[in-house]
Amino acid sequence: MRAQWIARRHGQPNVTQMHHARRGSVTEEMAHVAAREKLDPELVRQEVARGRMVIPANLKHPELEPIAIGIAATCKINANIGNSAVTSDVDEELRKLSVCLRHGADTVMDLSTGGDIPLIRENILRHSPIPVGTVPIYECLAHVKDVVDLTPRGLLEIIEAQAAQGVDYMTIHAGVLRDIVPMAAGRITGIVSRGGALLARWMAANGQENPLYTHFDEICEIFKRYDVTFSLGDGLRPGCLADASDEAQFAELKVLGELTRKAWAHDVQVMVEGPGHVPLDQIPMNMQKERELCDEAPFYVLGPLVTDIAPGYDHITSAIGAAVAAQHGASMLCYVTPAEHLGLPDAEDVRQGIVAYKIAAHAADVARQRPGARDRDDALSRARYAFDWKRQFELSLDPDAARTKHDATLPQEAAKSAEFCSMCGPKFCSMRIHSHLGDGAAPGAALPCADAAPSQPTRAGGPLPIAR
Amino acid sequence: MRAQWIARRHGQPNVTQMHHARRGSVTEEMAHVAAREKLDPELVRQEVARGRMVIPANLKHPELEPIAIGIAATCKINANIGNSAVTSDVDEELRKLSVCLRHGADTVMDLSTGGDIPLIRENILRHSPIPVGTVPIYECLAHVKDVVDLTPRGLLEIIEAQAAQGVDYMTIHAGVLRDIVPMAAGRITGIVSRGGALLARWMAANGQENPLYTHFDEICEIFKRYDVTFSLGDGLRPGCLADASDEAQFAELKVLGELTRKAWAHDVQVMVEGPGHVPLDQIPMNMQKERELCDEAPFYVLGPLVTDIAPGYDHITSAIGAAVAAQHGASMLCYVTPAEHLGLPDAEDVRQGIVAYKIAAHAADVARQRPGARDRDDALSRARYAFDWKRQFELSLDPDAARTKHDATLPQEAAKSAEFCSMCGPKFCSMRIHSHLGDGAAPGAALPCADAAPSQPTRAGGPLPIAR
Repeated sequence: MRAQWIARRHGQPNVTQMHHARRGSVTEEMAHVAAREKLDPELVRQEVARGRMVIPANLKHPELEPIAIGIAATCKINANIGNSAVTSDVDEELRKLSVCLRHGADTVMDLSTGGDIPLIRENILRHSPIPVGTVPIYECLAHVKDVVDLTPRGLLEIIEAQAAQGVDYMTIHAGVLRDIVPMAAGRITGIVSRGGALLARWMAANGQENPLYTHFDEICEIFKRYDVTFSLGDGLRPGCLADASDEAQFAELKVLGELTRKAWAHDVQVMVEGPGHVPLDQIPMNMQKERELCDEAPFYVLGPLVTDIAPGYDHITSAIGAAVAAQHGASMLCYVTPAEHLGLPDAEDVRQGIVAYKIAAHAADVARQRPGARDRDDALSRARYAFDWKRQFELSLDPDAARTKHDATLPQEAAKSAEFCSMCGPKFCSMRIHSHLGDGAAPGAALPCADAAPSQPTRAGGPLPIAR
Repeated sequence: MRAQWIARRHGQPNVTQMHHARRGSVTEEMAHVAAREKLDPELVRQEVARGRMVIPANLKHPELEPIAIGIAATCKINANIGNSAVTSDVDEELRKLSVCLRHGADTVMDLSTGGDIPLIRENILRHSPIPVGTVPIYECLAHVKDVVDLTPRGLLEIIEAQAAQGVDYMTIHAGVLRDIVPMAAGRITGIVSRGGALLARWMAANGQENPLYTHFDEICEIFKRYDVTFSLGDGLRPGCLADASDEAQFAELKVLGELTRKAWAHDVQVMVEGPGHVPLDQIPMNMQKERELCDEAPFYVLGPLVTDIAPGYDHITSAIGAAVAAQHGASMLCYVTPAEHLGLPDAEDVRQGIVAYKIAAHAADVARQRPGARDRDDALSRARYAFDWKRQFELSLDPDAARTKHDATLPQEAAKSAEFCSMCGPKFCSMRIHSHLGDGAAPGAALPCADAAPSQPTRAGGPLPIAR
């Protein structure tokens, strides 16, 4: 589909969506996302021109079905894939990509750090209909013995090579400046961004400013030729509640605001990355601050986690923060899995992370009263009241999980049309009692009661009220 | 412990904490919860006298270690246990109770609906150091063939019997009035409270007002002799986002406010139950409304779920709402398990539900800046930065889950003192890089990099970066 759209754009000095938008053109990508989002294409053009919406869509990624990220669009979620230093199995990465696509990730980041990084990325790009992001410093470091040996030229070469391959957005930690790093000295967890920590070390060892900052214009020149969207990395994001909203975090955010305007001067699209770990009450202020300092560039946050005390459940601690962040203005949420802080996530962790974030993003869409956001909730609720179990499963974010949980106690096909589930059983179901009230008929037999806060824990598979 | 405190109170006409508080006495229970909450005992007395805090503590429950529920105290969570109509195994219920205690439920509700209900309750009470709640209409219905056969006298007798046994709080759906029920007619999911649906049916069949409303003063007379706390049930709570904040819900809430004041006139303690299913943006308004209509009586909410589209994950959809509800004033959260809407929860569902709700309650305590609320977060974060894995596990809400997830990829004992986990491996750990930065030493060998949004999914147990 997209190959035709972009055929005539090759070789133009500036191919970005923002460039076209500012010249008054509604590109095919803008029309496409407008249809997906049920927005006026002209509104999309205005938002892209204004920088309040991005359409990460590299000219060299014809397989892409473009999406919009911005406050006027529905909230998006990102999932991370990529190999580790000693595994580089292309098939395994493609399998992970398919898990992400199946469960509804809106973008993926390929965070591969070893093996044939370009080959893996090539395969992911050629099979991905969703935008692909990277952190180029990963590949850069594979070419040197120590981070301190990195050169600005080496960085730019890798960035250009990734852009030429079709990467739609790149995390660039250009805001980690020499003057700001010392502000993180008093923190409990210091620098928790790997890019931030590496750049801090590079600057300390070389006695020079962050090369991604000093060569920012050159990066913009590359990005405008391919339409790579910046994801300005927050290398000094807080790694625990105590470190949230501190001087280092906001000093860096201010720099990211300056860089946003600099990129926009090149008509290059920008997202800004955000935390991390933030107490619930500070989240709205954090969203507000980003809007002010970064001129409303779309905010792409990692959670945030609202407590540090639940390792093993950080998809939940962070989904709470993510929902509130998105309600208050974040445009994309980077997922966190149950394995966060403890180890490498497996496929089930990825699924849990994606579903938790689909929930958070959707809850925010409903809360922001985005048009039609509640339609699916209402349809599922109608199916629930009508005891249409199959329809409920179909409308669920994770139909397999819903069906499996239901069938754990009521596997029979007949139960799919039953006016109850095993939670209350036929005589205890409030919806059954009430729906029969409506037509004046009394539910058959006795109603030995039930109520209030539901959920009576009982061993699944044990005897059930409906067994007789 | 408590047996001595209450010995001299037996036979007094009014033994409630509120009664004592209003007469200026700081009871042993008040002193106990003040110590637990690190509050001034006089403040506790004032809050209890004012009705803004309850200490559910039946005189006949000497096994109790009292807790405080109210805005001045930390947020509490409830877990539901109880048998179903055809299972009545006392040992199984005690096993569930121990799961609740182990994972940190602050109260339990015994929602048993069949078998020897009083025997099960007796066993739970005699083994429970935390407050026990019930929904008396369940047992009432076990004595009649059909709900329509219930008599006000029968209801009062069961309520009195449960009070005499030691139940600390009871859900009483006295706000479901004949005039209000029709307001729910246009809803998508009608009446989803089992008590609400049953009472609606009773009123329709008998042509009379809700007996719990007409006999409310008599219930107060019983409650004041044992100090049973009201949990005024929201029989007309919304069962989906579309039905939230509607006329029926708030009309009932207004009645619950009247009943709160009526109970307070008897010096009887009151909590008010709340929804349910509420869009994220309506939650603060719902909390505000309860405070206004019910004179700040502690609000005890069921979630609320912030979306209807994720059956199988409703511990997450509701933990998001619960955290925000508690941040905005709810004092106790009734848990929801992953089995909600689909079937009976098993032991693992109970664990998942409790942990999700501990997270929500704690996030709210931090957000409300309750004194010392963040101490555990900070301690865990310090352990994290120090790579003290064992301490991290100890400080976790669910140490077993954290340890299991960590050990899935790094089971060796040596890994417990390693300066990395399998997520990034030794060369990729930002905390390791940064902590070594501090003392000027470079981390050994090359730093092939890493960064940004972490979590690279990889099959657990597969080859790891640290393997060589």
